[in-house]
Amino acid sequence: MRAIETVGFIGTGIMGAPMAGHLIEAGYTLRVHNRTRAKAQPLLDAGAAWCDTPAEAARGADAVFSIVGYPRDVEEVILGADGALSAAEKGAILCDMTTSRPALAERIWREARARGVGALDAPVSGGDTGARKATLAIMVGGDEADFQRLRPLLETMGRTVRRIGPAGAGQHAKMVNQILIAGTMMGMAEAFTYGRAAGLDLRTVLDVVGTGAAGSSALANLGPRVLAGDFEPGFIMDHFIKDMQIALQDAGARQLDLPALRLAADLYRRAAESDLGRKGTQALCKSVADHNRVPL
Amino acid sequence: MRAIETVGFIGTGIMGAPMAGHLIEAGYTLRVHNRTRAKAQPLLDAGAAWCDTPAEAARGADAVFSIVGYPRDVEEVILGADGALSAAEKGAILCDMTTSRPALAERIWREARARGVGALDAPVSGGDTGARKATLAIMVGGDEADFQRLRPLLETMGRTVRRIGPAGAGQHAKMVNQILIAGTMMGMAEAFTYGRAAGLDLRTVLDVVGTGAAGSSALANLGPRVLAGDFEPGFIMDHFIKDMQIALQDAGARQLDLPALRLAADLYRRAAESDLGRKGTQALCKSVADHNRVPL
Repeated sequence: MRAIETVGFIGTGIMGAPMAGHLIEAGYTLRVHNRTRAKAQPLLDAGAAWCDTPAEAARGADAVFSIVGYPRDVEEVILGADGALSAAEKGAILCDMTTSRPALAERIWREARARGVGALDAPVSGGDTGARKATLAIMVGGDEADFQRLRPLLETMGRTVRRIGPAGAGQHAKMVNQILIAGTMMGMAEAFTYGRAAGLDLRTVLDVVGTGAAGSSALANLGPRVLAGDFEPGFIMDHFIKDMQIALQDAGARQLDLPALRLAADLYRRAAESDLGRKGTQALCKSVADHNRVPL
Repeated sequence: MRAIETVGFIGTGIMGAPMAGHLIEAGYTLRVHNRTRAKAQPLLDAGAAWCDTPAEAARGADAVFSIVGYPRDVEEVILGADGALSAAEKGAILCDMTTSRPALAERIWREARARGVGALDAPVSGGDTGARKATLAIMVGGDEADFQRLRPLLETMGRTVRRIGPAGAGQHAKMVNQILIAGTMMGMAEAFTYGRAAGLDLRTVLDVVGTGAAGSSALANLGPRVLAGDFEPGFIMDHFIKDMQIALQDAGARQLDLPALRLAADLYRRAAESDLGRKGTQALCKSVADHNRVPL
């Protein structure tokens, strides 16, 4: 089995650019493709080779990473006519880090395998800050041997890198992550609305409740931003809505009844419809307060 | 203003008994009343005086604490014919630590004030463990002067003791706490159900997601219990349902629309109807999994 030297990287946006940067810093030879070339320029300046298509980025690469927007983008950049798989070498490994549909991850794994190519799904948690600081949590699905080969590369991007199970399991774990956050964010939005309606100084309240049984990472990190009126994105609401839709679709296929997740998706869609879709997930607090005519 | 020496304590259950114990250890003279005398016996053995009624516990006391079950119990032990207020001395302070209705706390404050008696609402967070270890978070509503007089006593019971605002504000802050927890618990229950339905090893998943943006005190403390099949109460589901009903009633009076809180109350009621009401709040995970015919 050859060592990994040349790496294709597809999608150099707010997440992908710093992640690819860590691979360059670690000494890998990068071939990058992005829809908008300008966003890849800092990587090209750092020595990466530009590729006009995902297929070109995959040509001669030992591993090909992708982190793009929606499942349809994943399908196109990996399985499309100019997709990475069409040009991937036998023995190469595709690693999609987009949060995407578990069933698509399984399909990619099957189609890749049929051509002698490996495939991992490896969505991340930790946002753009985690991507920059290489502190991401990375949840991996796929074959253990492929995981072990790519592990050193994943560890340049993340702090917690774990294989969860076979193809699709990484995406499923990410859905677990997003369902947890969906519940916590709804609780936060309604708690803030209730507290402000009752005339409370929420800063004092959060001081008391934040360290106890009601404490959460979301409350600690996003609560102060909400109270400061800061709704700029760490994680964009529209992307979170996409993730919840994937989870609901998958849950629906299993006939699971998950009313809290459904409600969270509804409340977030209402927020997005009132022009908050490009704001951060914490803007749900503003949407729920606005809906109740409560000043935050 | 006289120093606080003699203290009435009404309600010596799973929370009240250790809390009253801390006051005895701190050197206060205790007069205790409880519906079931046997549960007060350890306190009597430690030197507390038994009182047949709440009024008797309040007689000659400088401060009277209460921590009982439901708002109707609060009303009875404080405002009833044999209630603490009927016998409270001028200048004494009543301090109800039950999680109860904010409007009732305001009424107690008004009626007490009319008799020259002070009143605080001071619900707690932290459960029986927090009560035993004196690490409770205590959220106080009422007059600042009354708060300052009782503060040394509250600090024998809790680690974080904060005055939130006027009468009722302590209860409102506790509702904020419970609304936060309601959202987090729904997310946890549905995330576990989804993850198990997808065939994931939840221990591995929680290792990855628990330290990131999806992390919470509930997930860290209750998640492992759920995975171990341990649904015994830290905090009893029936009591949590009571708290959510209080929050919904108060929100309703303000015409607030809080669908996530409503859904949480519905899901918890369904769990209680399937005989989980005396289990801990984490048993919602079992209820949601059972409802979806997913083995946890």
